[in-house]
Formats: sequence, structure tokens, C-alpha cells
Amino acid sequence: MSRAIQQLGRRLRLGVIGGGPESFIGAIHQSAATMHGEFGVVAGVLSSDPGRALTAAKLVGIPRGYSSPRALFESESQRQDGVDAIAVITPNNSHYDYSMQALAAGFHVMIEKPLTITEKEGIELLRTLRQTGKCGCVAYGYTGYPMVRQARAMVASGVIGEIKMLQSNYVQGHLAELTAGELDGSNWHMNPEQAGPSLILGDIGTHSYHLLSFVTGMTPVQLSADVTNIVAGRTVDDYCAIWLRYGNRARGQLWVTQAAAGGVHGLGFTIYGAKGGLVWQQEQPDELLVRPLDAPAYMLKKGGKGLHPAAERASHLAIGHPEGYREAFANLYLDFASHIVDNISGNSPDPLSLWYPTVSDGVEGIAFIYAALRSRDNGGQWETI
Amino acid sequence: MSRAIQQLGRRLRLGVIGGGPESFIGAIHQSAATMHGEFGVVAGVLSSDPGRALTAAKLVGIPRGYSSPRALFESESQRQDGVDAIAVITPNNSHYDYSMQALAAGFHVMIEKPLTITEKEGIELLRTLRQTGKCGCVAYGYTGYPMVRQARAMVASGVIGEIKMLQSNYVQGHLAELTAGELDGSNWHMNPEQAGPSLILGDIGTHSYHLLSFVTGMTPVQLSADVTNIVAGRTVDDYCAIWLRYGNRARGQLWVTQAAAGGVHGLGFTIYGAKGGLVWQQEQPDELLVRPLDAPAYMLKKGGKGLHPAAERASHLAIGHPEGYREAFANLYLDFASHIVDNISGNSPDPLSLWYPTVSDGVEGIAFIYAALRSRDNGGQWETI
Amino acid sequence: MSRAIQQLGRRLRLGVIGGGPESFIGAIHQSAATMHGEFGVVAGVLSSDPGRALTAAKLVGIPRGYSSPRALFESESQRQDGVDAIAVITPNNSHYDYSMQALAAGFHVMIEKPLTITEKEGIELLRTLRQTGKCGCVAYGYTGYPMVRQARAMVASGVIGEIKMLQSNYVQGHLAELTAGELDGSNWHMNPEQAGPSLILGDIGTHSYHLLSFVTGMTPVQLSADVTNIVAGRTVDDYCAIWLRYGNRARGQLWVTQAAAGGVHGLGFTIYGAKGGLVWQQEQPDELLVRPLDAPAYMLKKGGKGLHPAAERASHLAIGHPEGYREAFANLYLDFASHIVDNISGNSPDPLSLWYPTVSDGVEGIAFIYAALRSRDNGGQWETI
Amino acid sequence: MSRAIQQLGRRLRLGVIGGGPESFIGAIHQSAATMHGEFGVVAGVLSSDPGRALTAAKLVGIPRGYSSPRALFESESQRQDGVDAIAVITPNNSHYDYSMQALAAGFHVMIEKPLTITEKEGIELLRTLRQTGKCGCVAYGYTGYPMVRQARAMVASGVIGEIKMLQSNYVQGHLAELTAGELDGSNWHMNPEQAGPSLILGDIGTHSYHLLSFVTGMTPVQLSADVTNIVAGRTVDDYCAIWLRYGNRARGQLWVTQAAAGGVHGLGFTIYGAKGGLVWQQEQPDELLVRPLDAPAYMLKKGGKGLHPAAERASHLAIGHPEGYREAFANLYLDFASHIVDNISGNSPDPLSLWYPTVSDGVEGIAFIYAALRSRDNGGQWETI
Repeated sequence: MSRAIQQLGRRLRLGVIGGGPESFIGAIHQSAATMHGEFGVVAGVLSSDPGRALTAAKLVGIPRGYSSPRALFESESQRQDGVDAIAVITPNNSHYDYSMQALAAGFHVMIEKPLTITEKEGIELLRTLRQTGKCGCVAYGYTGYPMVRQARAMVASGVIGEIKMLQSNYVQGHLAELTAGELDGSNWHMNPEQAGPSLILGDIGTHSYHLLSFVTGMTPVQLSADVTNIVAGRTVDDYCAIWLRYGNRARGQLWVTQAAAGGVHGLGFTIYGAKGGLVWQQEQPDELLVRPLDAPAYMLKKGGKGLHPAAERASHLAIGHPEGYREAFANLYLDFASHIVDNISGNSPDPLSLWYPTVSDGVEGIAFIYAALRSRDNGGQWETI
Repeated sequence: MSRAIQQLGRRLRLGVIGGGPESFIGAIHQSAATMHGEFGVVAGVLSSDPGRALTAAKLVGIPRGYSSPRALFESESQRQDGVDAIAVITPNNSHYDYSMQALAAGFHVMIEKPLTITEKEGIELLRTLRQTGKCGCVAYGYTGYPMVRQARAMVASGVIGEIKMLQSNYVQGHLAELTAGELDGSNWHMNPEQAGPSLILGDIGTHSYHLLSFVTGMTPVQLSADVTNIVAGRTVDDYCAIWLRYGNRARGQLWVTQAAAGGVHGLGFTIYGAKGGLVWQQEQPDELLVRPLDAPAYMLKKGGKGLHPAAERASHLAIGHPEGYREAFANLYLDFASHIVDNISGNSPDPLSLWYPTVSDGVEGIAFIYAALRSRDNGGQWETI
Repeated sequence: MSRAIQQLGRRLRLGVIGGGPESFIGAIHQSAATMHGEFGVVAGVLSSDPGRALTAAKLVGIPRGYSSPRALFESESQRQDGVDAIAVITPNNSHYDYSMQALAAGFHVMIEKPLTITEKEGIELLRTLRQTGKCGCVAYGYTGYPMVRQARAMVASGVIGEIKMLQSNYVQGHLAELTAGELDGSNWHMNPEQAGPSLILGDIGTHSYHLLSFVTGMTPVQLSADVTNIVAGRTVDDYCAIWLRYGNRARGQLWVTQAAAGGVHGLGFTIYGAKGGLVWQQEQPDELLVRPLDAPAYMLKKGGKGLHPAAERASHLAIGHPEGYREAFANLYLDFASHIVDNISGNSPDPLSLWYPTVSDGVEGIAFIYAALRSRDNGGQWETI
Repeated sequence: MSRAIQQLGRRLRLGVIGGGPESFIGAIHQSAATMHGEFGVVAGVLSSDPGRALTAAKLVGIPRGYSSPRALFESESQRQDGVDAIAVITPNNSHYDYSMQALAAGFHVMIEKPLTITEKEGIELLRTLRQTGKCGCVAYGYTGYPMVRQARAMVASGVIGEIKMLQSNYVQGHLAELTAGELDGSNWHMNPEQAGPSLILGDIGTHSYHLLSFVTGMTPVQLSADVTNIVAGRTVDDYCAIWLRYGNRARGQLWVTQAAAGGVHGLGFTIYGAKGGLVWQQEQPDELLVRPLDAPAYMLKKGGKGLHPAAERASHLAIGHPEGYREAFANLYLDFASHIVDNISGNSPDPLSLWYPTVSDGVEGIAFIYAALRSRDNGGQWETI
């Protein structure tokens, strides 16, 4: 049952920029936004080519196709039934412009990660968001999994004690060999001008980094980085190893690559505190392994009894009925929608809805990328983030 | 991209009977039908109470709420934009009537399992469906998982040789103790008049039974059954053990219960042929373990290379991005929609779309239930199915 | 530190009948008996061929080789430093004779399973053992695993409540095809005269059956059996499915085969009581999964804190250091030795040492085999065990 | 069947220095050396206290107890039936002296790790060993597991292509809190004078480091290290993170700690080459996961078909029968014995026997420790090993 419909008497209306019929992440956004009936996708610009943009909107079944973001913003901001929020799903180097324009036009924003190309852009975007008072979400989709939220709740409540060691792997295999898309230039992810200064850091490294921050609420103060590529002939980074140092002497480690031949998805984290550990693997997302200091390890399962409300609200099916990546993503939209509804209604926001990843998180992600590159350039020296 | 929209120029229109705002399976049907844009849910009767039916439709956001199935069938069959198909999600004892009425009104039908209460009803329903030439799906949702389809394709192509042993567990724990719903009579699943003669056989036993048939294409000729309850004070069956015999001397076994204290969902199958085995567990649905006779066991993953087209079309996200129960269910609707579109268009059906479970499968499920009860009543004697 | 040496001032002395240089189980017995220094293997008859028996003893390094069991019994019973115990590791049809002779000669006996060929022999052997007051162990080696003992202790203490469902798989693959040894008659396991009336029941079925009894302390009152072979051209049984009924209405199930193409070892059990479940798999023997009714599942590990003394005494290395099949077998010898030492010393036995499987268990195993065959012959009828 | 007995006509004779009745590793060495009948333990000095040394030898059942290593070396070197080899199991700071004395007395040496305290000692010991022509093994016991050897064979044969990424975790939990042994000074591992300059590097870090070298045959050229402690009040290191760089641009990573609250044993490795990956976890030692670039992941199992001879000779039980830590350790002794027998007989050594870890490996381990400490002292700077 949609909270938007219940409280506002209508679905929220979403406009999408980017994410055409062939786009993986475009389909995810649309299906996630509508899964629980919070949003209807009513407007869109699905290609940077004006003609294809209109055709694609029709094909995908979006009622109001536009030929450009500018056209969408102008028209929708004047309609009574105009969109409430914009999802920016374009190549990375246009996130900043479209997000700023969307805010200027009065819309809430859902922005793909990495937030922007430069730190300066990120900070400016955050400042603007705060001025407008709108809601802004950065699509770190993995934080929508119920058991990631359960992990966060358990750390916050002290179940595993003071955090001592944080580790995240993101060891993919899909770039274990040179790909057509990087050889012929058709894959914008491989083009630093569109994707930003480091493929591996921006594409998936920020996910690992954010996940550790999201779960522990801790921001590291320093990092040391080894960022390189391991596939011969590749010009962009496909490997990074990062060490993190926290204020309380805790240590963090990341191993992130897309070039692990035979690897699948490979995202997960292991976090040890003074009283125990937590282990989560994205490929079995419904499970969270808890390792107490003085008791046997136990397995929490999505939908089980006694989970934190933030995990419960992110789980929609009974225990043992798997929910996946799409459902995790939908949870970001659920919280984002809840926040928007409260914003529109003038209510103070439901605290649980604020667990979605924010533009501020996005700024931290960009700072992480640049700190890692500085460290790499200085032979792995410890850099302040 | 919706095949319906591409070919018909519009989404298919679905009407739902049953599955109100509190219903687990009701929400699943609606979200599954719309996930890939094949169907819009445009009409519904969401309660047997006329007043609540109208309120519920409004609440859930279904445009055309009706106070009774009869009203819906009459009105929708006369509208130009009337529904194409009806989903029957009511208590078991009304499946037959509503399905027959839906067919009579000219609609395709999606029917929850078990198909009917009696074998006679099932056979009559199947006969009527064939006469009308409409499409009919029975919601054995677990067959929508990509790796279940992969298993079926591998058996069909002989990868594991002639089938010798088939085993399925469905060992749940949610009825390990007496529940409020059975003590106060509010849970219709516990009422044989509404649910049929055996809770355990009808509620989940048919899933295990159908899964083995679906994967192997084999129908057993005889069974021996032990059907009982193991929780003191319960009046309905919560446990069954079934042995199956096949024409080729293969042996099958089912262990199905809802009363395993500490059990979670517990559905899976293990099938051995002369050349190897296949193992699948619903709680890790993206994986299929293959055990060849003369080589190491290997793990196929949803989204991986080299899978059968029937598995590929049921997988919508890249390898390592989990898809769950909702997505499996959506695959039934995808195939059902594809069949309907071909039916409307007068095309011969896409063979891959015909992998969805049919009314004929539903009839076999009812036959299984009665054969098991006969065997139980005869002290476990072997009964012809 | 050997308890025998500590208390008696010397190692116990073991004589072995059977188990020559090529024998799998012969090597296991010798290595298990000596692992913790309880026994020295000082005498043996390692072949039924007198010449080869002497050569083999020399080859294996057994000080006193004999040409026949009779010669061994006569000589050893008259030596001051004669053996304390005899291990009977010969083909099944000679277990009875050699065990009776060993008892008559004044020795304790360790006997391979199945105990005997006929029930009558088993009962006679048990009677004789009791008359002599000697110690007798039947080599159900899997009961020596620490976590099997932990499971037994947990059932006994009521952790999972009254037992409701018992299940054991033993699904091996090594006879998935006809083997040279059965075609040329060289494998005595395939010869009913030497091995007994049913390969599958005697060879591994008794292990599954005994394991359930060992862990729960419950003996079933009735069984129904389907015993057959599934490999074309085979003359002995390679498959059985068994249902068990217990006095308290609990239900048991066995699925046992050696003909699962691609299967490995495949022994394990799942037991549910009114308050939770236990799952153990022999291929990961150091772990016991506990599924409480109202709490998350947890994993007990060998060597961890808080285990029952019977599990602790069977674990010799720190947590996380795997112990295997050989160590499990050695635990039988440890307990057997402890019992013998108390017997020799005239002390009342250490209760924990009495967890080893006894001749009485062996008799129950034979009764199980014959009850299963009677049921099979009567079309699966329920038979009293 | 013992190769020593077959070829020499007798068992090899082992003398042990250190490893008294309470010692974990002492019991392992004795049980490993004798498991397959290669060695008899015939002499020993089991305590640095002369009186206790004699008592302990008697208690453990070692025929010739000595009051000091000097006494043992003198006496055994003059006996006709004197020991062939010495196992040095004393605290780390005496490994050098006793090993040098053992070599001087004409014995082969089995030395616990870490080999010595200083690099200089290690190099001197290696030089002396070569001069004497004796066999020397360093007890990196984890290399004795069959599937570790299989991994090495697969890397050598190019199955996973040129090595690109190497990772090893060794994340234990037994020092997650301050222990009695470090507070009262009774645990020599916590005393740098006896244990060497870094607890974590010497105690378990060298295992991870050696395992990567053993499997890949690659020695890194540089490392960067973060070595510290994370438990408040501890004076020795309990955490290290290490990055490795190899000549071919491959990258390595270690995460090693004994202070992971809730951690168990936690040793394993993941290695990716250009054509695939290998994953092994010590707590499930019988399995090796292989991840090919273009095919599904498969699981090799100890005892399965088609393994490399070096893995086969290290596996003594049929597939599915677990073998553990003790058996792995015994494989070092088996190879060491084989080498000694060839050495005594004047035969060229069996190449497969030379897979045991050598004194040269031990020297590399010491070099690793000191390079890591230099890097730590220089703020994580890359250091040549």
C-alpha cells in the first residue's frame, strides 16, 4: 500500500533523465520507483538525441516524452500535474548540471552515483539542495537491502561493540579482458571525460567505501591507495586496494576490481568490533552472519523475527522468499518518496525514511576518489580524505 | 520493454478477483503482472464484502473497482477497453466458479493453486479452457525461477541422462505451533471447506510435486503416502511423506511439512540421472548445482553465459544481481502475456512462452492430492495417480 | 596422553583379524587405534591366505603375525603380554565366528558393521558378550564425530524439545555404474553370501539408521521400505527409501543409495523437535547447525566454547583446525579403551566412555535390515522392527 | 604402507626437542610423524627443565628421554640405532641453536616456524644445511593439505593463466581480548625476546605469506605494511595489513589478525590469474573452488578423480571422508621422510617429495617479517623484501 497515495491521495510523479530502453540501470530505476506504487513514471528524456528521446519514451510507455532535459524541466514545472521528482541517470559528467537544473525547477532529485565529477561540483550541489529544502538521494542501491540496514542498526546499538576492523571486497570479473566497448570507445564508462578520473573508483569503489560508512556511521580520516590496471592494454584503472584509518585507530581495507577473471559480482563486507563481527555478501543478500565474541555465530534472515524496524520496512515478503537487487533499489525509492511526502505535507520526516543515501554521502564518495588518486600519485602515502 | 506494447500497441489489461490490501499473494500478483510493463491492473474485486471490495480497490489504486465478480465480468466484457485476463486469487473453493465465469465472459485466466477442490472440477475447467481457446495459467510461482527452467532444459537435453531418482523437500516452520488463525477459525487455509481436503498437500505439497514434474517432464504412475499432523491439537494435516514410482523404475520422494520448528522456507529439489545430478534450493534461487558423473560439481548462476534461452529470458539483471520470488512470479506473467498476445494476434505461440504452468498441470496437482489421501487411508498402499 | 598408560602403566594391546595392506578400513582401524597412544597393534591375521597373512603383517609392521585367527587366539591367550582386544575387520559373514572365538579366548572385541548376517547370530553374540563381561564395540565410525555427540547431548537435554521428525540421507555415487568388482565377482561386498542379504542396507543403510538412533536415543517401532536397485544389470540392492514410525508419533525418513551419479559421500541428518532442529553433514563434520524455534539459526563448531563434555573429549585440536574421519574413528577406540581399562582395573566405567556404539546397537542394525526386507517383500507394508 | 620400511627395512627414527605433554603443536608433530608409519618417535627432550624433561618423556611414551638437547645429540649420534632426524619445536629464539646443533650431530631437521629470529641466523642455517647435505623442513603445516597442493599444481600448469592478484586472509579471534598469558607473562608467544619482533607477523602472518608463495611459486619484490595492535593495553602486534608487488605487476594483499572478536581460524586464499581464479579456505580444507574465466565455477574435492599426483599422494581416504589439520601435517612428514630415505639410500629424490616447505622458505619468511616492520616504521613506504 503506497504511503504517498494514502497521505497525499495520489502517487508521486517521477521524471527520468537518461536510462533508455537498452540501459540496465534505467530499467532498474523505473521498476524500482513503481514497485510499491509510490511513484508513477510520467515524464522522461531517454536519450541525448532528441529524436530517439521521443521514440524511446513512447516505446517504454512513459506518457510525456521530451526531447531534452530543458524542455522537460520547463514544461513540467508549469503543469499542475507536473513531476515531483527527477531521476538523473545520465553519464556521470552531466549529473551535476541536470541535478542543479532540476533543483532550480523545483524538483526533488534522485541522482546516480558517482554524484559528480569534481568535489567542487558535489559541494555546490549539496549547498544548493540545502537551500532549496528539497530531498536528494544518491543511488547507492546496495544500502537498500534489508540486511545491510540490519547491520547498520546492530552497529549503532552496540551489538558488536566499538568498531575495530572494516573490510569490503568488490571483486568483479566482467572486465577481465579488454572489451569491445573500450576498444571502440562506445562504452562511456571507459571514457574519463564522461565517467570521471578513475573507472574503478567511481564505478564500484565508491559502493564499497559508502557501504562501510553506511553500516558503521564512521568516516575515515586517512587513506592509502594502490590504484592501477592489471589488464594489458587497458588505459583506465581496473584495480584498487585501499587502506583506511579512522579516528579511533580502527583500520579499514578495500579490495575492488572488475578484472578478476572468473569473478562474478563479489561485493560484501566484514566488520569486526570489540564484541563481535558482521559478514554480508551481496550475492546472498537475505542473510547477515553475526559472529559474537563469546557465542556461536548465527544467521539473521530477512523477514525473520526481531529485526530492526529499518530492516523490517525494507522487507516485503515473508522469510525465505528471496528479494533481490531490484527490491533493494525500490527501498531507496520508498524512503525517498516517504521523505518527499512529508516534505510536501509539511510534516517532520519519519526518521526511518532518512536511512536512504544522501547527496552528502555522494560528496564523501567524490572526496574518497580524489584522496585515493592523490595517495596513488604519492606512492601510497597516507592522505587525509 | 513490454512485448505486449510492442506488438499490440498497448499493455494488456488485468482484472483481479481476491487479494486485498492485506493479502501476501495479492500484492505479489499485482507487482508481478506489472513488473515488466506487460499488464496494467485496471479492474478488481478485492473482497467478498461488496463495500470493502470498493474501498480496497481505491486504496490499492485499481481504477475500476467492482463489488462482485459478477459485476466485473458483466461490465468488463462489454467495455472496449475491458480486461484481457482475470487473476483468480480467492480461497481455493471458489477458484472453479470464478475461473469458469471468467472463461465464459471471454477472458484468459490466471488461477492460484490448488486449481480446484475436486478432480471433477479440474477436468471440467480444463475441458472448458480448451473449448474457449483461451490461455490459462496456474500460479506455481516457483517454476518462474530462471534456474528451475535451466534445470528443466538440462534434463530435456539429456545432460544428466535418464532420470533415476527425484527428491523434493518443502520443510517450513511457520506452523510449528498452533496458531491464532486456526484456533479462532479466521485463517481459511485451515478450513477444509474453503481450502480443500488436506492443508499440507494443497498448500505446499503440490508445489513440490509439480516442481519435480516441471523439471523432468515425467509424471509418476503410482504413489505411497504418509499424511498426518505432528502438532498436538491440530485438526488438519501438517506433514506428508510421499514416495513416487515412475514408468522407467525411477523413484521419487517428497518430504513436506509446515511444522518443522526452526525451519524457514525449505523448498528444493535433488534429481539424479544416469549421468549426473541437479540440486536447487529456493532460498538461493540464482544457483543451480550440477553434479556430473565423471567431473567435478559446478555451479550455474542466473545471468551467466551459456544458459538455455528459457533461463535467459527469465533473467532480467546481470549475473550476481539477485532476483527473487517476485521476479519468478513475474516470469509467469511474462509468458502468460506473451501467449495472450500471440492468441489475440492470431500468431502461433512462441514455444518458450509455453513453459508457464498450465491448467493441465493444475489438474495433475489435484489428482496427486486425492491419490495421496487414498494411499494414506489404505495404510500407505501404492495407489495409481 | 594415553589414559591406558596413565592408569595401567602400559598401552593396551590390539590384535586385528582382517584388513590387509590394501584395505581401506584396515588402515583406518590401525591408525585410529594408535592415534592417541591407547593401543599398540601387536598381533594380526591380515589375510585369509596363511602365507599372505604372515607377509602382510611383516609389511605393515605388526610384530606378531599369525597365519590364522585360531593360531592368534591360541597363542595370544597364553602370552603374558597377549592382546587385550581383537578387531574383527573381515567380510561380514565371518564377524560372528571370529567375535565368538575372541570372546571365548578372553578378549574384548571391536567388530565391523554390520555385526552379523542373521539376527539370531547377533542376539547370540550379545548374550555371550554379556556373559563374559567383556567390552564390545561395533564400528559405526560416524558416531565418533564430536558434533554428532554434541547433537546427541542436545537432544538428551531437551534443547530441541520432543522429537517429531528424523531424516537421514546417505546418497553416494560410487556405484552409479556397474563396477569391475561386481562383474568379475572380486568385490565381496557384492556377494550376498559374504556380505549379507542386502548391499545397500548392510553397507551404508545401517549407518543412517544407527545415526538417528544414536542421536535421539529413540528406537522406531515400525518401518515401511522400498528397497531395489536402479542400475540396470545389477543384482544387488543399491537404493532404499525407508519410513520410520516411533512410539510418540514421530516420523523418520531415510534416503540411502550408492548409485547417485555425481554424488560424493552424502551422509547427514536433519532432526526436528517441538522446539527446534539440528542439521549435520558428514562432509563438513566440524559444524552442527542448530535451528531454534524462536531465534536465528546458529552454528556450533568443534572446539568451540560451551560444548557438552562428550563433544569436548572427542575434539583434540583447537577450534578451526579440522578433524576428519580418521579422528572420528579414533574416538571410538578412545572410548573403547577407556572402558577396557576400567574393566581391567575393576573400576566402574566412566559414563562418557560408554557413548561408543555397542553390540546391542549392532543387533538393532541387523533387525532393521530384516524388517526392511520383509516390508519390501510385502509391497511396502508397515513392519514391526 | 611406509615407504621407509619398504626401502630401508625399518622405520625412520625421530627425536623431538620441545613439545611437552601440554603442547598443542608437540602432540601434532608426534601424531603426524607416526600416522603412516614412516617415523617412530624414539628420543626426546620435552622440557627445558631437566627433571621435567625426563618425566614428560616417560609420560608420553618416548623410549629414550634426555635431560637436555646436548645430551640427546651426544648420545643419539653415537648409537647404532640413533635418531635419523630431529624435530625442533621449542620457542622461536632457540630454533637456530638447536637446528645448528642437530645438523652438526649429523641429523636431518624438522623446524617449527618462524625459522629463526634474525635473517642472519636464517641464512647461516640454510648455508649450513646445504653444506651438510641433510634434509630440512620448516613446518608450514597448511601446505600439506591436498587441495593446497592441487592449487599449486594448477597454477604451475597454467590453468588460471598468468597470476594477477593474490590475497590471503588469516583472521583469527582468539586474542580479541587481553589474555591471562600476556598479562602474567606466561605465554612465550607474547614475549618478543622468545618469539621475535612481531607476534602477528611471526605467529601467523608468515603462514599467509608462505601460502601465497607456495601456491604460485612467485616471490614478491616489494611490500607495504600496516602493522599495529587493535586491542587496548596490548604491547605486541595483533594486526597487519600487507600489500605485495610482484615482478609481473601482479598485486598481493594480506589481512592477518588474531584480534577479530568472533573470528574462528580464518585462513584462506583467493588467487586470480588471467584465465581464472582459485579459492581455498582452511576450515573446509577438502575443497578447492575453481573459477574459470569462461565457464561456471567448479569445486574440486580431495580424493576426486583427475587431481594432480601431488594432491593424490597427500590424500589417504576416499572422496567425501574428511581429512584434517593433523593429516596435512602428516603429509609434511611423509615427504620429509621420503626425502630422507632417498638421501640415506643415495637415490635421487622423488620430485613429488620435494613439495615440502624448506629452510629456504623459512628464510624468506624471516625476510618478509623484517621488510614489513621496516615499511611500518616508514609510514607504509614500499620496501624491497
